[in-house]
Amino acid sequence: MGKVVLDISSSLDGFVAGPNPSLDEPLGVGGERLHEWVLGLASWRASHGLSGGEQSADSEIVAEGLASTGAVVMGRRMFSGGAGPWEDDPNANGWWGDEPPFRNPVFVLTHHEREPLVLGETRFTFVTDGAEAAVEQARAAAGDKDILVAGGASAAQQVLTSGLLDELQVHLVPIFLGGGTRLFENLPPDVRLERSRVVDSPEVAHLRYRVVA
Amino acid sequence: MGKVVLDISSSLDGFVAGPNPSLDEPLGVGGERLHEWVLGLASWRASHGLSGGEQSADSEIVAEGLASTGAVVMGRRMFSGGAGPWEDDPNANGWWGDEPPFRNPVFVLTHHEREPLVLGETRFTFVTDGAEAAVEQARAAAGDKDILVAGGASAAQQVLTSGLLDELQVHLVPIFLGGGTRLFENLPPDVRLERSRVVDSPEVAHLRYRVVA
Repeated sequence: MGKVVLDISSSLDGFVAGPNPSLDEPLGVGGERLHEWVLGLASWRASHGLSGGEQSADSEIVAEGLASTGAVVMGRRMFSGGAGPWEDDPNANGWWGDEPPFRNPVFVLTHHEREPLVLGETRFTFVTDGAEAAVEQARAAAGDKDILVAGGASAAQQVLTSGLLDELQVHLVPIFLGGGTRLFENLPPDVRLERSRVVDSPEVAHLRYRVVA
Repeated sequence: MGKVVLDISSSLDGFVAGPNPSLDEPLGVGGERLHEWVLGLASWRASHGLSGGEQSADSEIVAEGLASTGAVVMGRRMFSGGAGPWEDDPNANGWWGDEPPFRNPVFVLTHHEREPLVLGETRFTFVTDGAEAAVEQARAAAGDKDILVAGGASAAQQVLTSGLLDELQVHLVPIFLGGGTRLFENLPPDVRLERSRVVDSPEVAHLRYRVVA
């Protein structure tokens, strides 16, 4: 059975998005700096239909995540940046245009019902009955592969506090955002973690932990 | 000339002390878990006059810090847990009894004037004119060695935002404290960091960065 894995980039001061996210700046002010490390990697480029790019430890980590993932869980904020009824959401089809790069079933946590959405090779299912239901549906879709919890912070916290998470990988980027959305907020101190692996690179430290029940 | 180095243990959710610090629990609820990794190390034990202990990568990192340090800067909170006039502070001589383990000049940031205090081999000087003055005095005392900024969070933030810091080493402990004192709060996003070194161990990831002006 696949594992449930949170995989997310964070600033050194603990933010997964900068202040004041908007349609123009989905990741808030400065937030795009969190993902600069990934854009030039061969594995990331290949997953977006692009050739070339850098072969490196970073690229291998990303390749590993892509290969092991069979389904994705994300929050509504990550999907569209919006909240409330879908008909009022100016970004209701998400950030990724007609060919989202997921190519796996994606389960979006939301309070607002909606029919599934198929864009290119990615099918988005909207789950209104909570993180546990979303993970359950994702597990059925993933087969033997892992369920990637992709963000944002609220979805990550729901999965973590519900005891659903098996592993978490934080890509710690050596920048300060100074404000924005914190990855780890109000977490129960009784969650136990065990180091699984730390991979260092010039750009980012990849910290991976197992959640011990 | 020595470097100004922040060296501090943080939980994965970014806290350097747990909630509700008190005289009984100086590091707040659960905060002592931040330092469990250090207590059994040979180098730490030797610095506290104890024999034995574990020889490991962790112990080497601690030994390196001890050998390179020529003076220490800390905040009033870290020194005594108190605030306000010294005569009202029930812990006015600090946490460490008659033989504090520093054996280097210590400069305590405070708003309240006080004559220097000598305990065992450690001399505490109380600096009332800010982080820059404290670092300057520490530099004079340290000679060619480094100035250790030992904490707490407020002192660390003052030194960092004043542009006084050359390096920072965070010992990232894989626990959640869920609340307490955050290490990185309200930091300016224009502080630039460069990875210096990441050392992994089963207990803790030692992340070291250079501050680039």
